[in-house]
Amino acid sequence: MRYRTLGLALALAAAPGLIADEGMWTFDNLPLARMKADYGFAPDQAWLDHLRLSVVRFPGGTGSFISDDGLVLTNHHVGHGWIEKVSDKDHDFVANGFVAADRSKEIPVAGLELATLESMENVSESLAKAVPAGTSDLEAARLRRVALDRLLEEARTKTGLTCEPVSLYQGGETWIYGYKMHKDVRLVMAPEYDIAAFGKDWDNFSFPRHDLDFSLFRVYEDGKPYHPAHHLAWAASGPQYGEMTLLAGHPGRTSRLETLAQMEAYRDVMNPLRIRSLDRTRKALHAFAAQGGEHARLVSGTIMGTENAYKVYVNETLGLKDTVSMAAVARAERELRDAVAKDPTLRALAGASWDQVAAAMARRCKVAKEDMLVGKAGSSLLGFALGVAECQEQAALPEAKRRPGFRTAKQFEERRTALRKAEILDPALEQALFAAGLQGAQEELGAGHSYVTLMLQGRKPGEAAQAILGATRLGDAAVRASLLDGKAGGDDPLLVLARKIRTLQEPLMKVREETQAILGEHGARIARARFQVKGKSVYPDATFSLRLSFGAVKTYPANGTLTQPFTTFGGLYDRADAWGPEAEDHSWKLPQRWVDARGRLDMSTHFDFISTNDIIGGNSGSAVVSRKGEVVGLVFDGNIESNAGCYFFNPDVNRAVAVDASAILTALDKVYAAPHLVKEILAR
Amino acid sequence: MRYRTLGLALALAAAPGLIADEGMWTFDNLPLARMKADYGFAPDQAWLDHLRLSVVRFPGGTGSFISDDGLVLTNHHVGHGWIEKVSDKDHDFVANGFVAADRSKEIPVAGLELATLESMENVSESLAKAVPAGTSDLEAARLRRVALDRLLEEARTKTGLTCEPVSLYQGGETWIYGYKMHKDVRLVMAPEYDIAAFGKDWDNFSFPRHDLDFSLFRVYEDGKPYHPAHHLAWAASGPQYGEMTLLAGHPGRTSRLETLAQMEAYRDVMNPLRIRSLDRTRKALHAFAAQGGEHARLVSGTIMGTENAYKVYVNETLGLKDTVSMAAVARAERELRDAVAKDPTLRALAGASWDQVAAAMARRCKVAKEDMLVGKAGSSLLGFALGVAECQEQAALPEAKRRPGFRTAKQFEERRTALRKAEILDPALEQALFAAGLQGAQEELGAGHSYVTLMLQGRKPGEAAQAILGATRLGDAAVRASLLDGKAGGDDPLLVLARKIRTLQEPLMKVREETQAILGEHGARIARARFQVKGKSVYPDATFSLRLSFGAVKTYPANGTLTQPFTTFGGLYDRADAWGPEAEDHSWKLPQRWVDARGRLDMSTHFDFISTNDIIGGNSGSAVVSRKGEVVGLVFDGNIESNAGCYFFNPDVNRAVAVDASAILTALDKVYAAPHLVKEILAR
Repeated sequence: MRYRTLGLALALAAAPGLIADEGMWTFDNLPLARMKADYGFAPDQAWLDHLRLSVVRFPGGTGSFISDDGLVLTNHHVGHGWIEKVSDKDHDFVANGFVAADRSKEIPVAGLELATLESMENVSESLAKAVPAGTSDLEAARLRRVALDRLLEEARTKTGLTCEPVSLYQGGETWIYGYKMHKDVRLVMAPEYDIAAFGKDWDNFSFPRHDLDFSLFRVYEDGKPYHPAHHLAWAASGPQYGEMTLLAGHPGRTSRLETLAQMEAYRDVMNPLRIRSLDRTRKALHAFAAQGGEHARLVSGTIMGTENAYKVYVNETLGLKDTVSMAAVARAERELRDAVAKDPTLRALAGASWDQVAAAMARRCKVAKEDMLVGKAGSSLLGFALGVAECQEQAALPEAKRRPGFRTAKQFEERRTALRKAEILDPALEQALFAAGLQGAQEELGAGHSYVTLMLQGRKPGEAAQAILGATRLGDAAVRASLLDGKAGGDDPLLVLARKIRTLQEPLMKVREETQAILGEHGARIARARFQVKGKSVYPDATFSLRLSFGAVKTYPANGTLTQPFTTFGGLYDRADAWGPEAEDHSWKLPQRWVDARGRLDMSTHFDFISTNDIIGGNSGSAVVSRKGEVVGLVFDGNIESNAGCYFFNPDVNRAVAVDASAILTALDKVYAAPHLVKEILAR
Repeated sequence: MRYRTLGLALALAAAPGLIADEGMWTFDNLPLARMKADYGFAPDQAWLDHLRLSVVRFPGGTGSFISDDGLVLTNHHVGHGWIEKVSDKDHDFVANGFVAADRSKEIPVAGLELATLESMENVSESLAKAVPAGTSDLEAARLRRVALDRLLEEARTKTGLTCEPVSLYQGGETWIYGYKMHKDVRLVMAPEYDIAAFGKDWDNFSFPRHDLDFSLFRVYEDGKPYHPAHHLAWAASGPQYGEMTLLAGHPGRTSRLETLAQMEAYRDVMNPLRIRSLDRTRKALHAFAAQGGEHARLVSGTIMGTENAYKVYVNETLGLKDTVSMAAVARAERELRDAVAKDPTLRALAGASWDQVAAAMARRCKVAKEDMLVGKAGSSLLGFALGVAECQEQAALPEAKRRPGFRTAKQFEERRTALRKAEILDPALEQALFAAGLQGAQEELGAGHSYVTLMLQGRKPGEAAQAILGATRLGDAAVRASLLDGKAGGDDPLLVLARKIRTLQEPLMKVREETQAILGEHGARIARARFQVKGKSVYPDATFSLRLSFGAVKTYPANGTLTQPFTTFGGLYDRADAWGPEAEDHSWKLPQRWVDARGRLDMSTHFDFISTNDIIGGNSGSAVVSRKGEVVGLVFDGNIESNAGCYFFNPDVNRAVAVDASAILTALDKVYAAPHLVKEILAR
């Protein structure tokens, strides 16, 4: 006997306490008892070290060593920008895919750096000692930053690693993580974009799904394949229905421990602003791409990223509008506030913090529109000029009056290095995005706003963009370089304009800085109060630091039915056949290799699957492992219901979407004729 | 360039005017100009007559003649109850399917009657003349019924057909439809339930879908296959993407032209009551089925129907809660009311009608709970007894005081015939449903309500059911027959109980009758006002009378993506492979015949498809035809978004779901080894 649970599932949403499978856990604080109770398995330290040291951080994502010769598995969409970068108009590896016939054909990817997390140190106590009691919020923030800089320097010296601060629990804890960096990374294999992102932007965040979203890179050291101390073995097959799935990765950002006032501000002010801005950008990008082939290639990755962000914000915001979920957030907050109010020590610590946070958010919301729009307006050159102007302006101040990050000569040099590396857009794209950015500023701020009058001077946005870009010499890399070296270009019209914009930005930055200090201080106080009330039974919000998530392959109710837990190769061809090659902008068109390979494939082989793992953007490229620590899949997305995961985890419908390990091996073997890679992956 | 339209699509909903493809049109009033403009095709009279005369009405559904030898195509779920009826525990044609090897093996289905609509006559004018100006609503209703009875009698005599009144436009028009009845109907072919309803109740109202929901019957006359004057030819293939699709069928019930007050009453009072009632019934049925094999077989059809109704009501009600759609209804009503208010004649006709309707609905809502629950409480025997008690009680009154339908000796005889045919449940099921019904009455009305105290007399619902059923002899068919013949049984305890219940029902029936008269009168006045303002450019609400719908094969946004317009045989196996045979109560398990046939099938063959045709329950079994009038599919469902179609048509997401004509032929040929049927269907 079974009763339909659709209505129920939609009505549930986040309960105040922790829910099975919820959590993006730091490696120092895992709910081992819960894992044991729910799945009969809790990893030991060796298991955890092995997984952590097999994982690499990609820019914006995650990967894993999967061979003793430094082979790295990640998503195609994590590698996309880099694959695009090593392509040119005669070698479009995004469109056509790439398979290195042997190691000599692997393509070095300039600029790509991977990182392995080798050390973690909790420095919260040391930082707390740096702030005397009674210090103001703003001063406390400054003191903590000074102390942190010192601790980072010490850690670097001690470990020889690249050390980064990691703020957890809204500042309730601060850690220093030490990474080993891998700077020689080469492209080994990439499937065609049309199969890696089958269904394109339409299918993004949906399931059933048929994406072969993987790519292979290799780390080299001293010109030879790197032999990592740890790499993940490949499982004999993908997961079974109900099987426990674990994964380590770098979830980027969640706001689950923030206050109700913060969530309401996102829902009502910040997110709608961001959504409108992304909407303008994607329209400008599509219009640019529509001009022709090379244009389209140039922005395919940016379009994908922008559409993705747009879809995320839209759905996150829908999540925030769910009254049941928000009521649960309000209830949990009320419970914690009540507990704090009852205890004199806690009351002294955090009794006022919720109101402080609410007031700071209200202050932010007031200037949110200007804060977002008074700036580079989509122009990479103006962004560069603003960076230069800021450096010059801070350098002119006495050290005590400078903003953090502009104190030492070394910090100034770091800024200049970043500006040297800053990506400058193709001129035609620069013009298009700048025009769109100015148009947006005019729409949002009104024609009478001082920023708008400064930028447009009575011209139409497109004309203004053309005139401003036409007048500057910063489009020339040599001019930019000599400007950074302080040799010339100080009177460039764009820099003059940037200095005027900086004046308008100044009061906005002041609000941002002051409110950030309050949010930091009181977010941390609330976190400490929560530790007191609940112990460390909660996990910190995601901050693009390494986390472990566990769950199982499981269906969920959607679209009026129960979603199938797996897709198969048969389903891939079904989708392609059902649409036909011509329908709906070719989103479900198969690459020719796949049309040709059809007869060689076992259609019942699993292709993608879903699991209850709690993930979010940044987890992309995480290998899904079994309790044996072997690769059973490769996570690449969440379903649309998980977009609200920024704020809540709903175990009934939040699902991670992964490529099945069988699909990757089958594709390498039967479609891409790469037996050498299959052999390398399966070697023990 | 393309922009995501998901948010937009969800926000649109019913505009006040007519929307492309909207409409369940009567054959006398088709929007031919719109069809021509939108699709370049408008059927002529011969085309329409051919389709109408090829269609048959099933009890609760639709079918079509598809051969010169009277072969009839309908859904499996329309035939389900009849297939169940000709099965027994050794021949379970529902579970195992059935293929008549030749015509001698076709199984007569006792009680199944099909009907072809041969004549249509508008009698609105004649009825209007029967009511003098100034007559009260209640008296006007009575006078119209008397006149209608006379007109029906005349029509029967004139045409020799079975004539039925058809009320359109909330009573704004009344027609008499004349049907040729087909009473010798035999089962020819039925696939297994597991493939006809693949995905079972989960997939009901969903898409992508893989149901082979068809069955074949044959009409006989004088013991020989009937040769219909018209039958539909089979198309060479299913429809292409974007192709125009037309269908004729019997949509059961919509409320699109009702007033806002009526919709609000459904949303807030009637539907929630009905949903709770259906929920109790389905739980009782599942509990009954869970007792074992034969129990499960006995109620499989009833469970399907109950779950279906439950899902419909839940989703209809969700639709009514959509504020955008309801705002559109309110706006359209406001516009019509404004137009009526401006014109003195219209104001006299219908100026007060909306308020009259609202007051009547408020009166109904007050007694809605009692009206639903004071009755047979799920017991078929008590239902029978209540029918008998009503006949006796009406017979005792002078003719002028009797209710309509109890005036002439002939009408009494018709009532008795209906009672003779009344379905009596299996005793164990009777006990289970009666107990659940009494439990529900207790929960809804409270233990102190006079009906509850009468029924329970302090006992628990299960005990009361057992005691009441144990004391009556009406379980014996012979006793029921002699009671109807007036020979014996008048003192049966159940009949005594029924008479007491009738006393409680009397005031409730009075409210129903009085409010029905008001709703009929003023619904018709509003309809007549609408005719004046808009001409006959609108179609009437569905009333299980024959309608034509047109549209095209088209995708829609759902589940975060665009839905594929077709499914394929490959998708069917994908679904089965993805779930595996054991997962989730076998809902996606394939019959052995389908496992065996896998290698013989072309996986790219279309299986099901979606189209924009505006349909609703009762359209089930309608053949989908091309503009050539040839069968390209067989409609069997709507998507979950179309459930709100009772109240609104949203062209962005409302979709009909059909079996592709290719799937039916392929299955007959390759899976069911029935080349003789393929040959018969393809014969020209």
